Amino acid sequence: MTARNISRFWEWGRKIICVGRNYADHAKELKNAIPTEPILFLKPPSAYVREGSSILVPSYSNNLHHEVELGVVIGKGGTAIPESAAMEHVAGYALCLDMTARDVQDVCKSKGLPWTRAKAFNTSCPVSEFIPKERIPDPGNVTLWLKVNDQLRQNGCTSQMIFSIPYLISYISEFITLEEGDLILTGTPKGVSAVQVHDQLQAGIQDVVTMSFRVDRQ
Amino acid sequence: MTARNISRFWEWGRKIICVGRNYADHAKELKNAIPTEPILFLKPPSAYVREGSSILVPSYSNNLHHEVELGVVIGKGGTAIPESAAMEHVAGYALCLDMTARDVQDVCKSKGLPWTRAKAFNTSCPVSEFIPKERIPDPGNVTLWLKVNDQLRQNGCTSQMIFSIPYLISYISEFITLEEGDLILTGTPKGVSAVQVHDQLQAGIQDVVTMSFRVDRQ
Ligand SMILES: [Mg+2]
Ligand SMILES: [Mg+2]
Ligand SMILES: [Mg+2]
Repeated sequence: MTARNISRFWEWGRKIICVGRNYADHAKELKNAIPTEPILFLKPPSAYVREGSSILVPSYSNNLHHEVELGVVIGKGGTAIPESAAMEHVAGYALCLDMTARDVQDVCKSKGLPWTRAKAFNTSCPVSEFIPKERIPDPGNVTLWLKVNDQLRQNGCTSQMIFSIPYLISYISEFITLEEGDLILTGTPKGVSAVQVHDQLQAGIQDVVTMSFRVDRQ
Repeated sequence: MTARNISRFWEWGRKIICVGRNYADHAKELKNAIPTEPILFLKPPSAYVREGSSILVPSYSNNLHHEVELGVVIGKGGTAIPESAAMEHVAGYALCLDMTARDVQDVCKSKGLPWTRAKAFNTSCPVSEFIPKERIPDPGNVTLWLKVNDQLRQNGCTSQMIFSIPYLISYISEFITLEEGDLILTGTPKGVSAVQVHDQLQAGIQDVVTMSFRVDRQ
């Protein structure tokens, strides 16, 4: 069995909790209302993909979108964590993509169905290396960017988040116990758009990390 | 670390994939259309609860429903598993409840939002002991029942499933890789209803297993 090395959380971590519409400019670009409480959905750990492997377009989608997001890696687990203590539960961060089959998600939304097929498929969660907490002293003020074939598509600051990282940790842990190795995806700034087979995606947290992935057919 | 003993899959298994509306009589009782393909949603492993602990009504729900379901425990993992080979990937079964905050789910459905708050909360997945595969020679023909305070509420046969276990394993693994220790909840027959604080739930797979849980406030 893999030792529980937090720097390889994707090998043993048990959940990925994602926040939708956490940047007002992104909510608006998809013509969604600004949420009054966090919108949460899940990806399974089988969704992880690491640099060196490709992002695969699901066979059933013709509109796969990139969403660049700051991921928060949980160190110390907990239930009903107060907002004031939330950052003590953070081990570090990862740069993440929330790959989304937008066409499938639109159908799910219109039919009132869960988003699983749109959000939980294999390779729907590309992640960077683990970033120890000390390397991002203020996670509420870092710039995330994403390029497709060298063209800048997303560029936003985590200061634009509607719900802060401590608020999210507290809100989620009220009803879902957080465990070591869990990952929280904190939402995407505006600029999401479709990727095509053979596109090259590059993303970064300014001054901290970059990563790149190729897009292939499933 | 826990050794990977399949008979304690809930301690280390990494995903719970649930099928909605897989019995026509249950789809009808909630006034839902009969699905033409499986409806899937996820629970996190933090949702597991074992006999001896209580099912907790989330603070934000006034209408917590029981759904008794046959759980399929994956032994050998795989991707794009053909239906004909699907049963080779099954290690065994568990009797499960898919506890559902129906009031919250109704809001999610009407707003096109994911079902996380309705389905993924702590204690939303009570499970029985592990049942080795050999003890259920025909999982497509067993009777599931559930009583609340000794009153029979659900009583249905897995032969009524719309999508069979091999079909589900094949369908899911096409886009979500299955891993050892994963659990698939295969849907509930009709008779779902609300539970109240201090209710006693008893459920069984006829001639195979029974389990009981008390309901408490969060
Ligand atoms: Mg997102
Ligand atoms: Mg979901
Ligand atoms: Mg169910």
